[in-house]
Amino acid sequence: VKFKLSLIALLAILASQSCFAQEMSPGDDSKPASSNIQGAEYPRIHSDLRVNFRLKAPDAQKVRLHLDKDYDLVRDSNGIWSVTTTPQVPGFHYYWFILDGVNVCDPASETFYGVSRQYSGIEVPETGVDFYLPKDVPHGEVRARWYFSKTTNGPRRAFVYTPSDYDTNTSARYPVLYLQHGMGEDARGWSTQGRANFILDNLIAAGNAKPMIVVMEDGGIAGGMGGGRRGGAARGGGSSSPGFAQILINDIIPMIDSTYRTISDREHRALAGLSMGGTQTYQITQANLDKFAWIGAFSAPFGFPDVKTGYNGLLADPAAFAKQVKLLYVSMGTEEAGRMGGSRTFHEALDKAGVKHVYYESPGTAHEWQTWRRSLNDFAPRLFQK
Amino acid sequence: VKFKLSLIALLAILASQSCFAQEMSPGDDSKPASSNIQGAEYPRIHSDLRVNFRLKAPDAQKVRLHLDKDYDLVRDSNGIWSVTTTPQVPGFHYYWFILDGVNVCDPASETFYGVSRQYSGIEVPETGVDFYLPKDVPHGEVRARWYFSKTTNGPRRAFVYTPSDYDTNTSARYPVLYLQHGMGEDARGWSTQGRANFILDNLIAAGNAKPMIVVMEDGGIAGGMGGGRRGGAARGGGSSSPGFAQILINDIIPMIDSTYRTISDREHRALAGLSMGGTQTYQITQANLDKFAWIGAFSAPFGFPDVKTGYNGLLADPAAFAKQVKLLYVSMGTEEAGRMGGSRTFHEALDKAGVKHVYYESPGTAHEWQTWRRSLNDFAPRLFQK
Repeated sequence: VKFKLSLIALLAILASQSCFAQEMSPGDDSKPASSNIQGAEYPRIHSDLRVNFRLKAPDAQKVRLHLDKDYDLVRDSNGIWSVTTTPQVPGFHYYWFILDGVNVCDPASETFYGVSRQYSGIEVPETGVDFYLPKDVPHGEVRARWYFSKTTNGPRRAFVYTPSDYDTNTSARYPVLYLQHGMGEDARGWSTQGRANFILDNLIAAGNAKPMIVVMEDGGIAGGMGGGRRGGAARGGGSSSPGFAQILINDIIPMIDSTYRTISDREHRALAGLSMGGTQTYQITQANLDKFAWIGAFSAPFGFPDVKTGYNGLLADPAAFAKQVKLLYVSMGTEEAGRMGGSRTFHEALDKAGVKHVYYESPGTAHEWQTWRRSLNDFAPRLFQK
Repeated sequence: VKFKLSLIALLAILASQSCFAQEMSPGDDSKPASSNIQGAEYPRIHSDLRVNFRLKAPDAQKVRLHLDKDYDLVRDSNGIWSVTTTPQVPGFHYYWFILDGVNVCDPASETFYGVSRQYSGIEVPETGVDFYLPKDVPHGEVRARWYFSKTTNGPRRAFVYTPSDYDTNTSARYPVLYLQHGMGEDARGWSTQGRANFILDNLIAAGNAKPMIVVMEDGGIAGGMGGGRRGGAARGGGSSSPGFAQILINDIIPMIDSTYRTISDREHRALAGLSMGGTQTYQITQANLDKFAWIGAFSAPFGFPDVKTGYNGLLADPAAFAKQVKLLYVSMGTEEAGRMGGSRTFHEALDKAGVKHVYYESPGTAHEWQTWRRSLNDFAPRLFQK
């Protein structure tokens, strides 16, 4: 029976992925998305960033696409459904088909853990922008590091970016950035969707950022901000439900400092995160300012420190705060609105209170990975300077 | 609009993943599969290895499950379709739902690149067997290593397992096993589906295998055995279509030897692979016996060397072959039949010709990952001895 799988694979290949509604290039200016699986011709992106999606579903009653909005696909006589979208914002976007009412992945796309499950994603190129692409520069590594967590009483996995000279410059020690994902995502997000390793490779190769270690771990999803309600059991750990803050302080940081050649004082340790990870960053750095001197929150949706009482009252004393905190970095996309736009309000309050910080807005992007890639690219060069 | 994604995520969490047809534990002896996404209660595996699958699809006309065979799911009044399978063979199995005629992933499952796309997979536990589980032993790392390939004129990624003492025992040099996936899979297969890193961790921790580096790369899919017909372009590389053998010899091995502390002679270099990777192993080692002294082919479907002419006639001289080749390892599952069963025939021909080799059959398993996990667990301890 398993033999059948290989036959299916073989046939699929011989038929040039015909089961994915793939055909030859349509002869226009469109190109297959780089986020497609190997060999898939669709989805295709036009030069004006319209995207052409296809799904072979002869027996379906209705097929829709969820991307920036919902689109109806149209069926041809061969049972292939297709649609061309309006021009898309450059960057990475989750998407899915709605097949007779069920949200399903596009068989032609790679999958990405987001929105609390594996979904399809499309990489829309940004003209002239290559800071997150794999260039011909010295590359660091993203290392999957398994370790035993006493807090969850089970195995956990961290992704650890080490800069390109880590294994050759063996007497060097490095500062560490702990970099957290958002709600509905996990430790894989920053290197897969975010391309944090390429961003750091390119910055370091150009001399624009200090070589640093970047640690990416699971901030917890099902338990919300506290993290890990069900994660422990699902990963083979125990049934207890400690929050991410506890795991970070008691397990992750000690493991990283004992495993890698880090500089382990607070002046060489940063915490940053996107969305929920930004809110966690505010929470955790306020409670552990003895451990972090560099702070970044990209598109935090809520949980902003109060400018009078935040950081145990330190925010009310801008001079003292600036002495303790080497960098407070706040960012969001210009297109974020409503509850997601709180970063601008926080920035204005900080300005009004005279608290030194850096504020960045990503032009034309919303609560999405392109905002966070740009934020990291702007944030990382500021870290561990002086 | 991207804001909506986060709202959806939030609602999904608040509703306890209700969109995945998840409910509380049914109160029987079943447990969520370890291959489920975080927090997903289904699929659930019973103690007798029957598996209960669910999909919420109120508007679907028909839902089937493809696992060891096709099963019809039955719809309840809430639009939740379900089925309980017959007892499954322990190990990892790809599966998918057939939703109104379209093969789709289970939203509750992690995804795995196999059968030339991302599919769902289920890990069925084997009682009393833990050689591929993450135990509380020193763990090595699986490092994503990007590099520039002259052959494909573009970036490529290798996954490199380094043993747990690699970063502390900094004067040590290590032998290298190049370990290849099968058709329709890619470089991720051996560490994700195969758990090669845990197998090596456990063997090395018990003193049953020499510490070694394991390199896992893309053997090419769309181009068949030669590899890489479309892979280069899809990965950002050039349009040329060199075979995997050329990439391995000209790019991968020199990159590994210049980047890691390897022992770079043939006596400390092995090549092994499963299925298509086994056939590639026979091809590549016959053409490059000056580079490999240790050879493993797990469930190779075809491409067996002729016992009279193989290895440039060396197979016809068993004494000379045994002097050159430190290990020729051939394996398959007992349940492999027909074309996939050629390994047993090859073994019998080797025996008849008096060629020294090791042959292993995995009891009760077919052309599947449990066969290959067991093969690696049996193969790795034999490597680089003497």
